[in-house]
Amino acid sequence: MPKFVYNIFYMKLISLLTALVVTMSATAQKTDSITIKKISDEIMTNGNAYENLRYLCKKIGPRLTGSANAQKAVEATAKMLKEAGADTVYLQPCMVPHWVRGEKEEGYIKLANGSRRALKLCALGNSIGTGKNGVANSVIEVRSFAELDMLGEKVIKGKIVFFNFPMNQTYIRTFRAYGESGGSRGRGPARAAKYGAIGVMVRSLSSNLDDYPHTGATIYNDSFPKIPAVAISTNDAEWLSLQLKKKMQLTAWFKTSSQMLADVPSFNVIGEIRGSAFPQEIITVGGHLDSWDLAEGAQDDGAGCVQSIEIIRALKALEIRPKRTIRAVMFMNEENGTRGAQAYMEEAKKKNEQHIFALESDGGGFTPRGFGLEMNDAQRLKVLYWKPLFYDYGVYELAPGGSGSDIEPLKQLGTALAGLSVDSQRYFDQHHAGNDTFETVNKRELHLGAVNMAAFVWLVSEYGL
Amino acid sequence: MPKFVYNIFYMKLISLLTALVVTMSATAQKTDSITIKKISDEIMTNGNAYENLRYLCKKIGPRLTGSANAQKAVEATAKMLKEAGADTVYLQPCMVPHWVRGEKEEGYIKLANGSRRALKLCALGNSIGTGKNGVANSVIEVRSFAELDMLGEKVIKGKIVFFNFPMNQTYIRTFRAYGESGGSRGRGPARAAKYGAIGVMVRSLSSNLDDYPHTGATIYNDSFPKIPAVAISTNDAEWLSLQLKKKMQLTAWFKTSSQMLADVPSFNVIGEIRGSAFPQEIITVGGHLDSWDLAEGAQDDGAGCVQSIEIIRALKALEIRPKRTIRAVMFMNEENGTRGAQAYMEEAKKKNEQHIFALESDGGGFTPRGFGLEMNDAQRLKVLYWKPLFYDYGVYELAPGGSGSDIEPLKQLGTALAGLSVDSQRYFDQHHAGNDTFETVNKRELHLGAVNMAAFVWLVSEYGL
Repeated sequence: MPKFVYNIFYMKLISLLTALVVTMSATAQKTDSITIKKISDEIMTNGNAYENLRYLCKKIGPRLTGSANAQKAVEATAKMLKEAGADTVYLQPCMVPHWVRGEKEEGYIKLANGSRRALKLCALGNSIGTGKNGVANSVIEVRSFAELDMLGEKVIKGKIVFFNFPMNQTYIRTFRAYGESGGSRGRGPARAAKYGAIGVMVRSLSSNLDDYPHTGATIYNDSFPKIPAVAISTNDAEWLSLQLKKKMQLTAWFKTSSQMLADVPSFNVIGEIRGSAFPQEIITVGGHLDSWDLAEGAQDDGAGCVQSIEIIRALKALEIRPKRTIRAVMFMNEENGTRGAQAYMEEAKKKNEQHIFALESDGGGFTPRGFGLEMNDAQRLKVLYWKPLFYDYGVYELAPGGSGSDIEPLKQLGTALAGLSVDSQRYFDQHHAGNDTFETVNKRELHLGAVNMAAFVWLVSEYGL
Repeated sequence: MPKFVYNIFYMKLISLLTALVVTMSATAQKTDSITIKKISDEIMTNGNAYENLRYLCKKIGPRLTGSANAQKAVEATAKMLKEAGADTVYLQPCMVPHWVRGEKEEGYIKLANGSRRALKLCALGNSIGTGKNGVANSVIEVRSFAELDMLGEKVIKGKIVFFNFPMNQTYIRTFRAYGESGGSRGRGPARAAKYGAIGVMVRSLSSNLDDYPHTGATIYNDSFPKIPAVAISTNDAEWLSLQLKKKMQLTAWFKTSSQMLADVPSFNVIGEIRGSAFPQEIITVGGHLDSWDLAEGAQDDGAGCVQSIEIIRALKALEIRPKRTIRAVMFMNEENGTRGAQAYMEEAKKKNEQHIFALESDGGGFTPRGFGLEMNDAQRLKVLYWKPLFYDYGVYELAPGGSGSDIEPLKQLGTALAGLSVDSQRYFDQHHAGNDTFETVNKRELHLGAVNMAAFVWLVSEYGL
């Protein structure tokens, strides 16, 4: 049919179906929507997540795995969970890596004319130090792993490799850009070592041009030497790339004193409300308690922790007793090892626990947009049926997608997983950097995330999956 | 049928229909989606809106109607439109009110024990000054207009009325809370004057508890005396309310020297791309150029201005010639008179121009969520047909809703209207206050707004409405 007629037909069809669907949903889900509204009103009015986050960020601060602050955070969140009214609060032991940054890190680029530019840099997590003299040599800029492989040992050997993988600005979902460029930090140092590089400088994984170096874990490969590796700020990366483009003669020098110490004991922090009808069916909701040492870890991931505690608080305050057991879990060591996540899964396996669903919030405390669903089709259909219940709270996107590093291991137990997805435009400006502070979190955005998480968790506790 | 069977049936139906709709849309809209992707890539990569906003906020600053800065902003945005490549750039004259804040404003609460608390306050826009001695007396707190009417002249006469209308935190859409509580500022002073009040203190319209007073226009009623009126910070409002609840004896004093001067000439700034096929059909896209004098006016509404300019820039850079005329308009005087909006409509009427569509961005430069549609059903259906084209850019909500104060007058000409709706959780923390600064705007969020606006405007230019 002609496009015009077709359009009209099509529009009428959509309109009719929309009306039909809305009517049907409205009837079937009215009771649920009333409960969710109660939860929302409670959290938006009396929510305590923001103040708990303030405590984590301002009274404790950075919570690097293995640090004294991480232990303080364990104690503080256990206390918060008790105050929230959890039926049981306990610590789950796990051994964790203990990487330390060490003393002052520094570095510069020296041009042939003798002038120097100090670099805003930081050692990558898990990286080894340079020794007291640092490393120095000329710099090879690389824009992809293919380019690295092409240059090979002949060019790379003895040099400092500069991985310049800018985050792709055209991706509206910034996590996609992070995923694509993130290899430079995660695998870059190992791959450069393969060709004999003596050190690596990585362009910070930031959406923004600024002066913050962004740390994050690198993963060495046992087949190749461990070499020192730093992130430099995006402004430094842009400048350096320009000098190289102009064929400026230059050398880089940097010094780090980071090192990996022996594993130390630590904990996941767990608080639960026991299910009234099916207590053996466990629903996990969590975030990770550790943060990088440069940051207050407000967005990453203090937010996910305090939101999870808030769910316990709100359900208790409203005297809503879930049918299934809801567990808020503060996972330890997401950033450089996910040992807490492993320990949680292994204990669940050992005890033969029935983990029906797990939800993580680890994308920052920004306005919620949806949930990424890692589950089978039947489960996803069930969740999609609930979709209209979230619209009033700003959540529209329920689609296959990532859940969270801390709950991923539960896949082995057949657990259905989901991740809160939030507005991601600002996240990588702050991610793993000194500007991930409490001040960047908005109270209403943080609490609205908790509302949607609570609604999801409550629906699963009521109807199963 | 039993709920379970019904659910399965219902889910299958949705699933089937979704698949059908997606397939149909995909075929029909592929070409459009390619163009929109091009526009998005251009804006997200080369967009200049953020730098233009920096200029407006940091090189010019507050742009109160009638001020020298407002005139600077007229000249600056005309230049920006030229640089963006508009076919024509011109100024549209209008007479505007000229309200000035005058000298230092101050005030305090004095308790019976003699102690004083200085208030963070500011005169409301359009309000008269107190005279050099200020106004002083006891304070009557009022939580609704019904309460004010009940108290009446007997209680109010000679007193200072304190309108304490907190924004309702349970509303997820903060504009709804603003609409409900906003009467305190807009009509409160006139209504208190009716009962003989000598002055008014209004709780700032903020979602947040903090120390910023938020100004904004009040509208006197010619039937009653004009009385001085200030906004106090939400922290001060909470404190004051608590003292009154504790039955503390107290008096308030405040002094303002604001005044309304004679009207002065000013301008709307207009830049347009002439339509290739139907140049007489005009599409307006705009924001307002004036801001309150206390703020840089980054979110309100520098953002809407630079986004509108960006649309012109991106279309020109991509050599996309729209079929219908696209006009970017920086409206003058939205905040305390909307005279620019009136002038724009009146000239359109006089010239018998054909205004088919107008879109405003005046909710801040935050991540776009949707569009509010003020148009007839047939037009709305047409727009809904385009809905899937916006999903990739984060826009899900296309629903009846407000458009914008500056384009509202075009309703008289039968123009279809729309407003960009953005994530609103942070907006009222900054609205009309000293913390509405450039730093609160995120580049990607601002540019993503421009992407969605550009897409909408381009679709209308291509297909009409």
